Amino acid sequence: MTLKIALAQTNFLVGNIAANVENIIKVATYARDELKADLVVFPELTIIGYPAEDLLLRADFIAAANNAVYQLADRIDGIAVVVGFPELEGDKLYNSAVVLHQGVMMARYRKQALPNYGVFDEQRYFVEGDEPCVFEFNGTFIGLTICEDVWRGGIIEATQQAGAEILLTLNASPFNSGKIHQREAVIYEQIKTAGIPLVYVNQIGGQDELIFDGASFVVDAEGEIVFRAAEFKEQISVVEFDGTQPIKTDCASLYDEIACEYQALVLGIKDYVRKNGFQGAILGLSGGIDSALVLALAVDALGADKVEAVLMPSRYTQDMSIEDAILEAEALGVKHHTISIEPAVNAFTGMLADLFAGTAKDTTEENIQARCRGVVLMAISNKQGKLLLTTGNKSEMSVGYATLYGDMAGGFAPIKDVPKLLVYQLSRYRNSLSPVIPERVITRPPSAELAPDQVDEDSLPPYEVLDPILERYVEQDQSADEIIAAGFRREDVVRAISLVDRNEYKRRQSPPGIKITSRAFGRDRRYPITSGYRGG
Amino acid sequence: MTLKIALAQTNFLVGNIAANVENIIKVATYARDELKADLVVFPELTIIGYPAEDLLLRADFIAAANNAVYQLADRIDGIAVVVGFPELEGDKLYNSAVVLHQGVMMARYRKQALPNYGVFDEQRYFVEGDEPCVFEFNGTFIGLTICEDVWRGGIIEATQQAGAEILLTLNASPFNSGKIHQREAVIYEQIKTAGIPLVYVNQIGGQDELIFDGASFVVDAEGEIVFRAAEFKEQISVVEFDGTQPIKTDCASLYDEIACEYQALVLGIKDYVRKNGFQGAILGLSGGIDSALVLALAVDALGADKVEAVLMPSRYTQDMSIEDAILEAEALGVKHHTISIEPAVNAFTGMLADLFAGTAKDTTEENIQARCRGVVLMAISNKQGKLLLTTGNKSEMSVGYATLYGDMAGGFAPIKDVPKLLVYQLSRYRNSLSPVIPERVITRPPSAELAPDQVDEDSLPPYEVLDPILERYVEQDQSADEIIAAGFRREDVVRAISLVDRNEYKRRQSPPGIKITSRAFGRDRRYPITSGYRGG
Repeated sequence: MTLKIALAQTNFLVGNIAANVENIIKVATYARDELKADLVVFPELTIIGYPAEDLLLRADFIAAANNAVYQLADRIDGIAVVVGFPELEGDKLYNSAVVLHQGVMMARYRKQALPNYGVFDEQRYFVEGDEPCVFEFNGTFIGLTICEDVWRGGIIEATQQAGAEILLTLNASPFNSGKIHQREAVIYEQIKTAGIPLVYVNQIGGQDELIFDGASFVVDAEGEIVFRAAEFKEQISVVEFDGTQPIKTDCASLYDEIACEYQALVLGIKDYVRKNGFQGAILGLSGGIDSALVLALAVDALGADKVEAVLMPSRYTQDMSIEDAILEAEALGVKHHTISIEPAVNAFTGMLADLFAGTAKDTTEENIQARCRGVVLMAISNKQGKLLLTTGNKSEMSVGYATLYGDMAGGFAPIKDVPKLLVYQLSRYRNSLSPVIPERVITRPPSAELAPDQVDEDSLPPYEVLDPILERYVEQDQSADEIIAAGFRREDVVRAISLVDRNEYKRRQSPPGIKITSRAFGRDRRYPITSGYRGG
Repeated sequence: MTLKIALAQTNFLVGNIAANVENIIKVATYARDELKADLVVFPELTIIGYPAEDLLLRADFIAAANNAVYQLADRIDGIAVVVGFPELEGDKLYNSAVVLHQGVMMARYRKQALPNYGVFDEQRYFVEGDEPCVFEFNGTFIGLTICEDVWRGGIIEATQQAGAEILLTLNASPFNSGKIHQREAVIYEQIKTAGIPLVYVNQIGGQDELIFDGASFVVDAEGEIVFRAAEFKEQISVVEFDGTQPIKTDCASLYDEIACEYQALVLGIKDYVRKNGFQGAILGLSGGIDSALVLALAVDALGADKVEAVLMPSRYTQDMSIEDAILEAEALGVKHHTISIEPAVNAFTGMLADLFAGTAKDTTEENIQARCRGVVLMAISNKQGKLLLTTGNKSEMSVGYATLYGDMAGGFAPIKDVPKLLVYQLSRYRNSLSPVIPERVITRPPSAELAPDQVDEDSLPPYEVLDPILERYVEQDQSADEIIAAGFRREDVVRAISLVDRNEYKRRQSPPGIKITSRAFGRDRRYPITSGYRGG
């Protein structure tokens, strides 16, 4: 007796219920007809996409999602379909999964573990379920779980004890670097105890700040991987079970860490542009490493014909910056324009001359330059309907080494969660595929070029020192004392922490960016702006 | 036998543990020596302020807060002190209240109802307590509860059944219009059943987007108010109990709704500027109603000498706008500057001429003007260390009738949660105190003055139609069909909703503003930018 279970690793648009339903039917039909599957499993909250956030508070949205599921049951036959939806019962909303088969809902499971940490707010919307779900299908007892359920101890075991011989889990598990290994390790530990095979289906795609990386998999009763789908791609696959034992089949090999991060960034840009209906993307190309990397990412995501680069030199721009920027654009085959910001800078300088008479030059004048670039880029973005990508990295975002409404202007910030040292690594990685970033861009000292002979190290500790301090403070919540005890100089630590704390107001107004670390700025890290806490 | 209970309606800075402890000691000493109180009650999470958000995830912060409470016990005598703090036990964090008396912790209560909706994220941080707390003090049995506990049915009763004769509740209950009546009504209903008096202590002050309005009160065993502290002010008061019956004393009268909203806005500006250490505030004064109101609010909050206005006319600015702006600044005694934006607009027009050759004028050119104003204002803000107040209202924020990095530029957006029609009402209210906004500003049709003879109604339905649609959609989560059924034209509803949905990306980059309605943009309304949902 064999059973074929399809894994539908799909990329759905949050909120677009009608299109998602059509997509489910198309995928289920393919799984039935082409893969000869008996049952197909979709990701968590399939019908509405994940995370739908406060759309879940709208009665009309919930009604539409519930109606869609009931109608879906009638529109598919010959295959059992497992989909997730926000189930309304009375005034309670559950994060549920249902098995639709031959026009009926043959089983229904309500998620028991509702994550409410990090980027997750599920207790804002849902009530917890309180019992396992096991259903009989073609003589096999199959258990259902949803995402966090398999991370919290006890739920897999309880489902197995309720009679499950195979476990299905519907997921929307967001990517961060190394997450896939963590996921597979957690499942391995739990399955070792429970001793039943598990089918793990993850969604893929970008949704605002989150990337879902796919890499769905199946483990056997010993917790060993017997199938793995690709990372960062849609894929509909099938795994055959001999009785309750999955038969080993293709395992997609995993990208190494840096390739994984690069793919995540590419997918994030691609889906933000596509799902929001932009004509393409533009960015300011400075000749520095950050914009060079973002340009390469954008071209890899959208194609060279959808990307435009704008060079905006000033009196402080070195010739090599212009030369390198042009080399980058040409290496990638991207259209580029050069617009000097001097006329606008001069205009503002004149307009403010009376008011600023007698004051010393300070960051005000540097910010004016950055903001003139922001105005130019936004004008082009507005006129052409192209998304402006802002090119700041996580180190800058952390310490506020960026100008609000200047280089921070833009609709999307691809490398906002990429620390500077990782920007270098990703650039070298991209060049290893084909050389697109001039070597000089990677080796010269980083500079904002907003004042004569300026380099970042005038204002900040070297990134080799700064980045690990920031990782400990921002991602690991370490105190100043802990970081100093780890071997960093007190003055560097105190300065870095103080800058992070003081610049929350800037981050609050920054565009969304792609989460790739264990803690990104945005929904993942919610700090007060007004705060008397001075970093321990 | 009498008992004197002091209500410490205090304004603490989030995160500033050391200063908060000193403040508690000062207030407790005053309550003991001047008010002859036996016991003093502080607001929720006194030691750290509310809401501390992700500071609560920092081990060093939690350790500091716990140590502070233990040390506090030793530093006060002669009065029992009830304070709130984030109590760590093992790896569990509770939202707790303790009674400190004669150097010992004589009772401890853990909040049972943890709100996780609207602006609240308490389940992100805390574990629920599971039992009532009643302690004996001078022969009276006193129960403790915290904020949401008294909104959720059952907890007051359980505490009374556990023996409480008087109930104390520590609160951080954020303001929205009408909230005080809701609060008093909820307590009245619960106390009618429980039949014991209740002492309700609320914090006051502004914290980023939230205002805490104070208005602490005491009800007798029938639920009737026998004492009320002022709204929007720090106040340390005492209520005497004869046995377990509170003796009626001064009840501050309540502001009417419009005055309340005005006071909330004033307090919000004052505390954001003060707690973040700004030297004062600046704003762009256009001659329109929004900036006129923000100017008045800023002066009422900070004093005329701390506020500066900048007029930035263009070729589209009407003479009456300049005249009225100057009249406003002079009526309020505020320094003002006039800086024409024409040189910068001309510079950008020239810089973009080649690239834009052959394209029609559109909002791009309007946005350039708004962004030139943004650059000027930010330069002055940067140079002078003054907070830039942005002047957009909630109607504009809802439909995106504002320029990102232009008129949306600024550190704080005082009237971001004030719909346009309420802007008019608040302006008339302010003029009723003393005439500071010229009548013509109130009566002329609103215009952005970014194109010849432009008025808002060219692009938007009249505010008399738009505002109620927005209230239903944004605040009440009504569907298009429900709003149409309430008597609005389908085309107005569809257009308004579509604009709200499409402009989430702008709101995501807007500065924080003061919540005064039942649902503000910001932490209170968390929508995806990428969404296929089309408003039902």
